[in-house]
Amino acid sequence: MFGEFGLALSSAGGEKLFLTLFVMFVAAKLMSELFERLKQPAVAGEILAGIAIGPSVLHLVEPTEITNTLAEIGVILLLFLVGLETKPSDIFRVGGKALAVAVLGVIVPFVFGYVTLAIWGEPQIEAIFVGAAMVATSVGITARVLGQMGLLNLEVSRIILGAAVIDDILGLIILAVVSSMAKGGVNYAQIATTAGLAIGFTLLVVFVGARAVNKLRPRIEKLRVGQSQLVFGLSLCLGLAMVAHYVGVAAIIGAFLAGMALAESVEGTDMPHQAEAVTEFLLPFFLANIGMQLKLDALFNRNTILMAVVITLLAVISKQIGCGLGVLSMGKKKAMQVGMGMVPRGEVGIVVAQIGLGLGVISDGIFGVVLFMAVATTLIAPPFLVRLFKGEKRVDEEEILPLSPLS
Amino acid sequence: MFGEFGLALSSAGGEKLFLTLFVMFVAAKLMSELFERLKQPAVAGEILAGIAIGPSVLHLVEPTEITNTLAEIGVILLLFLVGLETKPSDIFRVGGKALAVAVLGVIVPFVFGYVTLAIWGEPQIEAIFVGAAMVATSVGITARVLGQMGLLNLEVSRIILGAAVIDDILGLIILAVVSSMAKGGVNYAQIATTAGLAIGFTLLVVFVGARAVNKLRPRIEKLRVGQSQLVFGLSLCLGLAMVAHYVGVAAIIGAFLAGMALAESVEGTDMPHQAEAVTEFLLPFFLANIGMQLKLDALFNRNTILMAVVITLLAVISKQIGCGLGVLSMGKKKAMQVGMGMVPRGEVGIVVAQIGLGLGVISDGIFGVVLFMAVATTLIAPPFLVRLFKGEKRVDEEEILPLSPLS
Repeated sequence: MFGEFGLALSSAGGEKLFLTLFVMFVAAKLMSELFERLKQPAVAGEILAGIAIGPSVLHLVEPTEITNTLAEIGVILLLFLVGLETKPSDIFRVGGKALAVAVLGVIVPFVFGYVTLAIWGEPQIEAIFVGAAMVATSVGITARVLGQMGLLNLEVSRIILGAAVIDDILGLIILAVVSSMAKGGVNYAQIATTAGLAIGFTLLVVFVGARAVNKLRPRIEKLRVGQSQLVFGLSLCLGLAMVAHYVGVAAIIGAFLAGMALAESVEGTDMPHQAEAVTEFLLPFFLANIGMQLKLDALFNRNTILMAVVITLLAVISKQIGCGLGVLSMGKKKAMQVGMGMVPRGEVGIVVAQIGLGLGVISDGIFGVVLFMAVATTLIAPPFLVRLFKGEKRVDEEEILPLSPLS
Repeated sequence: MFGEFGLALSSAGGEKLFLTLFVMFVAAKLMSELFERLKQPAVAGEILAGIAIGPSVLHLVEPTEITNTLAEIGVILLLFLVGLETKPSDIFRVGGKALAVAVLGVIVPFVFGYVTLAIWGEPQIEAIFVGAAMVATSVGITARVLGQMGLLNLEVSRIILGAAVIDDILGLIILAVVSSMAKGGVNYAQIATTAGLAIGFTLLVVFVGARAVNKLRPRIEKLRVGQSQLVFGLSLCLGLAMVAHYVGVAAIIGAFLAGMALAESVEGTDMPHQAEAVTEFLLPFFLANIGMQLKLDALFNRNTILMAVVITLLAVISKQIGCGLGVLSMGKKKAMQVGMGMVPRGEVGIVVAQIGLGLGVISDGIFGVVLFMAVATTLIAPPFLVRLFKGEKRVDEEEILPLSPLS
């Protein structure tokens, strides 16, 4: 590989590959360190790093197919790691509450978004798309914050994780309906099939996955390939991420389910630590890449800026109300914890906006508004989460919980 | 991230992302397992997996900017890991021999390639490009084989690593000269500057790097960011890979030097193990991607097929003779070990061929020949290496040597 020609293999845009890798990784980690010292959540620092190095500020790097891919792999690994700490039974126990949180957390934000834009005088289809984008939940951010605080084993954490899985399926259905409306006609049979597949896949992995993996375990230990537990885990993670994607749910849901299926069989082994090392390398690309999506120049005028601020506030409040209502029986504090946990829209909100833009049904202004809302909610939630969860008893079982003390 | 839309973020070619990740990783690991059971080198299995899933056979996946990027990151991490096991003083001690191996290992293959194509009646510029491609060394393959055998600490292993660094600088100069010739005129001043920069960078890192890192160590331990040793190591790896690339040598050389600078300070810590986990995830993409480059349909006719076979044989023999001569004083066995260690052309040979194709100076047929030679030498060397190194005393210090027992 002869230096200056070394990138002939990776053609377009490849020339800046090494600069991009270095700047994203180091900027994210430096900000993470700074935020840790300021006793602020590291994730927020890493997203801010992305804003700083991205097109809106320094323009050292910009989102490309490469950064998006690394980001995707990073968040897949994160959810896999979170799954490794979550046994299926943990989620079953909170199933009812998670369902309530997810359903109300979809309805309230959608209504808030739709009504606000309708009142603002925007076209109906744009109002619907903004509503759909406000439904999204980027569970990775919350999972990372709670993981770093060693709180993934709390009941509320499990409610958030369970609700995120259900939320994703509901979001899939809403987006399918909304997209078909934008294209002219809604094919309910097709949407029902997609929804059925998504639900079937999830239930299948949850109910059969762990048992199947436990049976395979002795065989995996006999494999000669290096680090066989890790290799098997990563294979399952990539495999279920792929199936989830083809079935119609998010790849991260597949990765989370893969982790959950393995949770019992890897308990007490070194595997979660190894998976954590891989995640530490790739996750910064996910977090920085979110910040890099922000394009401040898309917020053309005072009207758009005002709308961005209003929509962001409503995005926070509507999840607080909707998700909070679902667990109000547990008390106000827990309701607020769950509500805030569902606030970050992150990459999911961005994807919805991009689909709207791709279908030609939302304007550049509205796209900028949703982008702003997605990044801002992702940035706002972590510090509030830290405050809301302060004083909760940390579960410090170092050998079992990979995310807590080391990350 | 709503499943079927989840890839809106990663646009072109992204639709197949999850399939590509899954198929490459699992196919490589399965073949690795199979080859381990057959007591064959796992690397060869992983490259063969790439051939099987690639355009030449099953066509499940094909090389893209994404796979090339993951491959690049994988081989960078591999060389970083190898560097972690190599102290600068280990290389100094064998410096003279490494230089002889590198110089003779450049001259002999170039002459063999050039003369053969000239006799075959091909145009001079094509003969020169084939010669340049035969100079290339893909040290990653040999390093992986020796690492898996736990033999990286042998004197011959160090000679191979040192020679590979020097070989890369020599290769850079040759390719610069050859490319300028193809473009019409050779700017010797510019080439001298490039060479000077490359040499200066290497010497600087080797002489100053380890000392600087050792001084920084107490500060790194105080960092609050998770897995601070690993994060610092990866930052240095990406940073020096980037500088190496801009200076003109291969990014992997920068990564190797970064590892070497850290070798002393991480001795006895868990960091090499963590770095190994990251490598185990990304290296299969490098190995499978090499196999995926093979395009058998480029070998149009009997003449090209014959040439591919002859060039491949000469590629093996010429490194054996050239590199072997450099260490003949150490005895015939060690000369053969070193010579075989320098045989794989891998991604480096492919890059040279692509540059020639890009400049329009080599035909599709010759491109196919070089591609075949690059992949075939990479596939042929590992089993011979295993045989030549059989019976060498394995260094089984599990806690220090990350590559040996686990990988």
